[in-house]
Amino acid sequence: MLIRVAGGSGFCFGVKRAVSMARKFAAEKKGEGVYSLHDIIHNPQEVRKLEQAGAKHAASVSRIKNGSNVIVSAHGITAAEEAMLKSKNTMVLDTTCPYVKKIHLIVAKLAEKGYQVIIVGDKHHLEVKGILGHCQGDCRVVSSPEEAQKLRLKTKVGIVAQTTLNIDNFRVIVDAINKNAFVSRYAEVRIFNTVCDATARRQEAVTALARNSDVMVILGGKNSANTRRLYEISKAIVADTYMIEDEMELKKRWFKGKKYAGVSAGASTSADVIRAVTDKMKKMGDN
Amino acid sequence: MLIRVAGGSGFCFGVKRAVSMARKFAAEKKGEGVYSLHDIIHNPQEVRKLEQAGAKHAASVSRIKNGSNVIVSAHGITAAEEAMLKSKNTMVLDTTCPYVKKIHLIVAKLAEKGYQVIIVGDKHHLEVKGILGHCQGDCRVVSSPEEAQKLRLKTKVGIVAQTTLNIDNFRVIVDAINKNAFVSRYAEVRIFNTVCDATARRQEAVTALARNSDVMVILGGKNSANTRRLYEISKAIVADTYMIEDEMELKKRWFKGKKYAGVSAGASTSADVIRAVTDKMKKMGDN
Repeated sequence: MLIRVAGGSGFCFGVKRAVSMARKFAAEKKGEGVYSLHDIIHNPQEVRKLEQAGAKHAASVSRIKNGSNVIVSAHGITAAEEAMLKSKNTMVLDTTCPYVKKIHLIVAKLAEKGYQVIIVGDKHHLEVKGILGHCQGDCRVVSSPEEAQKLRLKTKVGIVAQTTLNIDNFRVIVDAINKNAFVSRYAEVRIFNTVCDATARRQEAVTALARNSDVMVILGGKNSANTRRLYEISKAIVADTYMIEDEMELKKRWFKGKKYAGVSAGASTSADVIRAVTDKMKKMGDN
Repeated sequence: MLIRVAGGSGFCFGVKRAVSMARKFAAEKKGEGVYSLHDIIHNPQEVRKLEQAGAKHAASVSRIKNGSNVIVSAHGITAAEEAMLKSKNTMVLDTTCPYVKKIHLIVAKLAEKGYQVIIVGDKHHLEVKGILGHCQGDCRVVSSPEEAQKLRLKTKVGIVAQTTLNIDNFRVIVDAINKNAFVSRYAEVRIFNTVCDATARRQEAVTALARNSDVMVILGGKNSANTRRLYEISKAIVADTYMIEDEMELKKRWFKGKKYAGVSAGASTSADVIRAVTDKMKKMGDN
């Protein structure tokens, strides 16, 4: 069985940056009370490692003690959370991905200028919650063309996307918003393509690989949005697509009679995990 | 035969304004050398009336004498023409429609901020030439989805429309630009819906009337873009659609056996001409 890994798999720029910043900070501040607010990235192993490095995991700002050190995750936080951290006199290390930070600035400016802001993405995702929390005005999240069509649009509309959105989903939803806008006689629609380049490249690579494979393994955290998109894209091409967090979940029967296996990993999967998976697949495929 | 006139027919706000400003100015400056640069509106009768009022028609700035008085038409002129008029020490009456003027400002600002500017409209039309002449940068005119798809887009794109564009054409071309933008991984697309409200209303009204008529007469200057759109919209619904400039062109045979006749007139057609047409149609339809 030939095993190929899709280009752009694994840690993206923003994830690498967040993990290395967080580890360094946790080591420096060890013994002075360090918290990691939300999951640093959507990867349980990395969350565990950071805890081992001395940073206590906090699911909300209320769990954080006054005057402590706080690591803000790669997905970013809301303006309200930022204010609460400030009022608690914490020392903050902000690892928010610069591409996400840019969206915070865009939505804040759009709202300030009177645009209705539409965030295309998953409203339950940390990144989207963070973006929404930087938008003081008429801001809403949509995740499907159907929702987009039902929106009551204002005359000036600004659109941004969750960085890890499937670019085709974004296009379809933008089309639906435009259609709606033309019906409601809009004055201006402003579309910011904030899907990050690493996401777009990764999705293109998994598409190409899936087209030339008979079984696909998608690697990543179960709550990782970008991994789920990779799974959806691959599943639509190859029925035998499986999503796992690590090599322990691999099943030998998946590879029976298969000749071309493809592997793709989300932005929060480390190179170590990818290697462990391909090594085990090699053994399973040989027998 | 029942004769109905579509809502919103005839002189729009911008045309009424230009004609009345120009007449007043021509009367005031009579004997001091008055020129009317380009057609004041796309209506031969009004052009003639303005000449009778004392304003000499000039097809280009080069025809205008230094120190004279100049009426700038409702469609607007380029920045270069404005500069030439200034260098000739002329006294200028600018009757440019405020909605067109607004587009001049939008494209100038977009170009200044580094956006590639796409003007959706007819590149041979005075209004579009004027808009293009206010855009110092990468600006181009497209008139079809095919042209829009072939554009080599930059990362920041701004789109405006000729005020008299068919709103459905605009939507289709915007969709094509968006499709193209997604392929070229754009950063921002900014769409200004500059189709004027009077145009949109007039097009909706002719659609509704055509659906309930068995013959349609569209009135307006042969070089009037907005009249041509009305003709196209009506023709797609009622095969027996005729486009004329005045009542002299009406043919009795058009109305033979017809029960429901509809009339729609472009923005540069006066109420007098509409009345003359419906009066004559009434006589033709009665026999």
